[in-house]
Amino acid sequence: MSAEMTQRGTGGGTQHGRMPYRDLRQEESINPGVRRRQRLASWKTVPESLNFTVEENEVWRTKQAQLQYTNRNRWWTSSTSTTFKRWVLTMVVGVLTGVVGIFITYFTQYFTRIKFAAVRDVMDREAAGDLARGAAFFAYLGFNVFFVCVATLMVWIEPVSAGSGIPEVKCYLNGINIPRIVRFRTLACKALGVLFSVAGALPVGKEGPMIHSGSVIAAALAQGTRSTSAFGTDWRVLEFRTDPEKRDFVACGAAAGVATAFGAPIGGVLFALEEGASFWSTALTWRCFFCGMITIYTLYVVRNTENLWGSADSTKMFSFGEFTSFRDGMANFSVWELLLFIVLGALGGLTGALFNGMNQGSKRVIQCRFNVSLVPFGCPDDEYNEVASLFFTDSDTAIKQLFHFRESGVFNQDVETFSSLAVATFYVPYFLLACLTYGIAVPSGLFVPSLLSGAALGRLVGHLLHRLDAQSGTFADAGTYALVGAAAGLGGMARMTISLTVILLEATGNVANLLPLMLALMAARWVGNVFNHGLYDVHIRLKRLPYLEEDAPRVALERSASAAQCMSRDVLTFPPLATVGDVYDTLANCKHACFPVVARDDGRLAGTIMRHTLCMLMKHRAFAAPGEDPKDRDDLRTRALSPLLSSALFERAYPKFPEVDELELSDADRGCWLDLRPYADTAPFSVQDCCSVQRAYRLFRTLGLRHLCVVDARNRLRGIITRKDLDEPTLDEKLSWVNDDADALESFSVEAHPSTMARFAI
Amino acid sequence: MSAEMTQRGTGGGTQHGRMPYRDLRQEESINPGVRRRQRLASWKTVPESLNFTVEENEVWRTKQAQLQYTNRNRWWTSSTSTTFKRWVLTMVVGVLTGVVGIFITYFTQYFTRIKFAAVRDVMDREAAGDLARGAAFFAYLGFNVFFVCVATLMVWIEPVSAGSGIPEVKCYLNGINIPRIVRFRTLACKALGVLFSVAGALPVGKEGPMIHSGSVIAAALAQGTRSTSAFGTDWRVLEFRTDPEKRDFVACGAAAGVATAFGAPIGGVLFALEEGASFWSTALTWRCFFCGMITIYTLYVVRNTENLWGSADSTKMFSFGEFTSFRDGMANFSVWELLLFIVLGALGGLTGALFNGMNQGSKRVIQCRFNVSLVPFGCPDDEYNEVASLFFTDSDTAIKQLFHFRESGVFNQDVETFSSLAVATFYVPYFLLACLTYGIAVPSGLFVPSLLSGAALGRLVGHLLHRLDAQSGTFADAGTYALVGAAAGLGGMARMTISLTVILLEATGNVANLLPLMLALMAARWVGNVFNHGLYDVHIRLKRLPYLEEDAPRVALERSASAAQCMSRDVLTFPPLATVGDVYDTLANCKHACFPVVARDDGRLAGTIMRHTLCMLMKHRAFAAPGEDPKDRDDLRTRALSPLLSSALFERAYPKFPEVDELELSDADRGCWLDLRPYADTAPFSVQDCCSVQRAYRLFRTLGLRHLCVVDARNRLRGIITRKDLDEPTLDEKLSWVNDDADALESFSVEAHPSTMARFAI
Repeated sequence: MSAEMTQRGTGGGTQHGRMPYRDLRQEESINPGVRRRQRLASWKTVPESLNFTVEENEVWRTKQAQLQYTNRNRWWTSSTSTTFKRWVLTMVVGVLTGVVGIFITYFTQYFTRIKFAAVRDVMDREAAGDLARGAAFFAYLGFNVFFVCVATLMVWIEPVSAGSGIPEVKCYLNGINIPRIVRFRTLACKALGVLFSVAGALPVGKEGPMIHSGSVIAAALAQGTRSTSAFGTDWRVLEFRTDPEKRDFVACGAAAGVATAFGAPIGGVLFALEEGASFWSTALTWRCFFCGMITIYTLYVVRNTENLWGSADSTKMFSFGEFTSFRDGMANFSVWELLLFIVLGALGGLTGALFNGMNQGSKRVIQCRFNVSLVPFGCPDDEYNEVASLFFTDSDTAIKQLFHFRESGVFNQDVETFSSLAVATFYVPYFLLACLTYGIAVPSGLFVPSLLSGAALGRLVGHLLHRLDAQSGTFADAGTYALVGAAAGLGGMARMTISLTVILLEATGNVANLLPLMLALMAARWVGNVFNHGLYDVHIRLKRLPYLEEDAPRVALERSASAAQCMSRDVLTFPPLATVGDVYDTLANCKHACFPVVARDDGRLAGTIMRHTLCMLMKHRAFAAPGEDPKDRDDLRTRALSPLLSSALFERAYPKFPEVDELELSDADRGCWLDLRPYADTAPFSVQDCCSVQRAYRLFRTLGLRHLCVVDARNRLRGIITRKDLDEPTLDEKLSWVNDDADALESFSVEAHPSTMARFAI
Repeated sequence: MSAEMTQRGTGGGTQHGRMPYRDLRQEESINPGVRRRQRLASWKTVPESLNFTVEENEVWRTKQAQLQYTNRNRWWTSSTSTTFKRWVLTMVVGVLTGVVGIFITYFTQYFTRIKFAAVRDVMDREAAGDLARGAAFFAYLGFNVFFVCVATLMVWIEPVSAGSGIPEVKCYLNGINIPRIVRFRTLACKALGVLFSVAGALPVGKEGPMIHSGSVIAAALAQGTRSTSAFGTDWRVLEFRTDPEKRDFVACGAAAGVATAFGAPIGGVLFALEEGASFWSTALTWRCFFCGMITIYTLYVVRNTENLWGSADSTKMFSFGEFTSFRDGMANFSVWELLLFIVLGALGGLTGALFNGMNQGSKRVIQCRFNVSLVPFGCPDDEYNEVASLFFTDSDTAIKQLFHFRESGVFNQDVETFSSLAVATFYVPYFLLACLTYGIAVPSGLFVPSLLSGAALGRLVGHLLHRLDAQSGTFADAGTYALVGAAAGLGGMARMTISLTVILLEATGNVANLLPLMLALMAARWVGNVFNHGLYDVHIRLKRLPYLEEDAPRVALERSASAAQCMSRDVLTFPPLATVGDVYDTLANCKHACFPVVARDDGRLAGTIMRHTLCMLMKHRAFAAPGEDPKDRDDLRTRALSPLLSSALFERAYPKFPEVDELELSDADRGCWLDLRPYADTAPFSVQDCCSVQRAYRLFRTLGLRHLCVVDARNRLRGIITRKDLDEPTLDEKLSWVNDDADALESFSVEAHPSTMARFAI
């Protein structure tokens, strides 16, 4: 129970944990109302964190002991069975993600076919000439507007289904619980939305949304069916109702999504690890690998239903086609051309940075949503049929054309499949459109648009080089430049590295062009990073999500800050025994997810207890009888006052634990005692107050913590560090006033710092 | 100073840290000599750990403050400069690894050529017939014996250069400092040794040793040139003298080694991460990626020196050749054959498990070293020329033959390039030989032997299937089966997963066969894991190295053990102020690498201090004046007693810090005071004694710690956990007597555990 609570006089108890922050308490007493309102306002904007750490309390220990007892002398133990179920469920995730991918692809093609058939119908019916062209154009326009409207409707139904979903999946894996991001409804809206936005000819891809869809499938399956309410049955056999399990499933689903989108299972594993998991887990890698493999297998089988048991066809939802120039296992570029590929990569980095910058702007500015998609259809004239062959087709085909169509007239400069002018005419508006579109409210992916615009840029460079040196033919094929350009475009936008290389490698189907791809991606990343962050990071920052990067923000090192400087001091704590009324009032007046339990004699940190645990205790009325503080009772040292709730109860409630305002307590209840000791995690992760911010950050981020207690040399609680204390803007602000006069640093002393010395009693 | 020391009466001081383990102290006093001898004996067998955590003491803080001060308002700061140098050095590592790879390949081929030329010479000179054959055979034998003798000589010069070196690199990255494993001499012996053992026709590969070589190059470069003593200059610009930096460089070097060996840069990155790094670091991934890319680039450039600026040639030291059957981007197997691939994978897992089991045995038994390599030459008869074409060639060529030679008579069963009998005749002895050879004392890799034997097995299966169904031709090419078999063979032996898939993918050069490879690898891993561990783990266990797996040993969970149960209780501690004599005696009588510093008033953990720091303090005589215990001096709370050593001094000494027996101290010195406060890490990682072993293990392993202090609820030191407390055999032993009567578990109580309750003062 906090000091604050006592002052408000709502609690029935008279004892409370010693609050070591006298300054804070005084501050609170000056104007507690204002402070609380401010705090609540700031909480509302920060989404909750996920619990990636197991709570080591008596409930957990009892469950473990029971499990071990049940498992004694058995070969098929409950942990074996859980592992087995986990693998089965992973398999189901793989299969379903593949099926959803096939669904999206099939219906995208189906609606596109319907659209073009109708347009051709109009053209045939009308007399040839301007009227036909005009009518066809408006028919085309009408279909596109309708499809885009449907896509927008999906976003209206479920707003988080907008965009690619990759930033949200990244955040989820990082430990931020964005509301509704892994719900079944989000999946439905995403799948239908992306289907219609691609069919509606927006310059978007379906690859990003596929990754999100895979994650949702995985999360929904791990959660079990009751919460999704999709089926009436109580299918409890296959459920994994904890945040760490769910996170792992989401990672598997993301891997399966990449496998579906690009036919790149290994790329998917790497994507899940690079973007999400904060530590390398061989077991998780292995599971993602399996999941992606099952997806690929599903695609194999489904695509080959017609000729089932026959020869296996290509499996890819997305493919770059066969690079014939690499067929003989030899690259067709010369060694010194690799330098040109680096330059092209740098160019990709520049355009990517521009793209991200514009996107950041457009996301803020864009208002009109529909006319955007119509611009490319303004001049469908015979004069530009090359351009039309890029615009009026799906993006995958356009990419393949840029990669593989021969410049038949390279060496005599007569005929080119695509003239440079055509490519340029396509590139500039497409780039701008793609940039605008990502900001609007439809489910949309950016892989394909950036690959396509990059490919166009690369092909332009290739054409230019061939013009410069038309006779000797020293330069590689324009298709090679298009491929490298595509990699540079995507790399400059997303800044992923190894997963991206593997995805492109798997999509290309040949390793001969590995070195050019690597060089281009590296150059794109380095150049792009000079200007801004990768697009997903840009979006995460725009949404002000407390995403934790791998390394501590630079300011922490620059200020030589300690954990005490960055921690939150307004900690609300509970004593080991608290009255229901106190607990209720504290919970009702704050949104903290975790409360340290401090011993009453010296204020030392004895454990932490979660908000949802307290709510569960009150909901299930695990109360002891009211009365005087029972601290002097003899049996209290060995017996818990109140009955113990089982772990099954907690698992069944997950993740919708009761909220404090749903509880109904009588006045008599308020006087009852709550024994928090069996429910407190008695070995919470903690750091010393003199610990550096880097060390605390590393501990926090690497272990995926939700809260980190800061204690002094006698283990008395000094403060608490949560995700929002460690993200860059907060640290910048908190540390800005510390050590601000750099001149103070000028006089170094060989003496130890007083704060260090104070730790040692001499 | 510990209680033990006081009892021996060697120390000059009268104050010492309160030792909270009275039981232990009494035990010690009964027979201190015996216990100490035992402890020393056990230390000798356990190699030192590496320090992957920065020591946050005053020395470090001063350095940070100085750096920040120097960097103020500069765009090119010292950290920018360090980053730049790091990348430059990574590039040099990449280039040198490539060069060493080319050196090994070139001279292997050169010596093999010499050998065969000489043999042909003998054959030509002698009359045709048995005499010529006999003479040629003995010439061949002589060359091989000579080459193998040279290889063995190399191992005699530097014993740690034996074997593939992969287990050792794994251990290094895991944090075990195996002596001399990253020395320059090891590199030289390894490179020459593997060259001669491959030239000497042993069934070994040069790929594993290449990985080790890359690691040594990286470590030597990071260390700087003085310790390698290869150059006379003091090349201090490019040195990174800390364990974490060196570890990262070793990971980069390993990646470059894989890139050199297989032409698989991405596989190399994954290998480094999967086998080594305990947490996913994007920065490290990125650097490994860069390093591998530079290696590939180097190979490109060097291989193309003749036609430099011309078309780029194949870059691979090792290649599987072009799979013509996959050329059209379509796999040539049918969907249901994937089940056969799974079976083949399982077969690979079985043989791999057999291989590992036999290897484990042979390593213990084998004595005669030379006759082993001669067995295959016992019957070089015309009757077996198919067999000879597999045996009497280098392994890479043999693999390619198995993959690509057509069974011309598949459908009429007349002629086969390799008859099934030939393949079987090759397979059985080769498998046995490869198994025996890995145990003998030459530098040797196992990738190629297991790929080769797996390929033979796969081809056998392919032949068998074709015999079963010769007419309809439903089965894929025998070459495809050979490829899948090779993957299964390697997977069954090494049990790596994702890195292996990528390596094979990159070596094959085509992704069409990705799904068969994945299925086979997965089946091989699952089946193999039923029987034993991967070969590298088998070797690590044979050497009794305290390698920490990703998850805590199962016994920890089964026993519901707490940190207090697995920690070492024989902690030697120091007070904040100690006399030189006390410190010296403690150091001289133990091998502990780290000593907790405990406050004198209540025994609380105030910090930790490293052995090497203490030795440095004594060597550099950072003493305060002798005399009475200065604890009552007024200025002691803010001033350090003794002068502060600079961080540069420590960095220059790394890693060969002075040993305690090198110190020369007079009697007067022994009475001087040492102020440990500025040198102690004041925020050491610690866990509560009631923390579960799993949580402590996760903290220890994920953050790469060397020691983890165990404290009670008031932060008083209870014990310490080091690597050797957490490895499986130790935990098994320590926890075997705990909770041994399972019946005790039968009566669950809903009461909290007494140990939990004791934490809360009611």
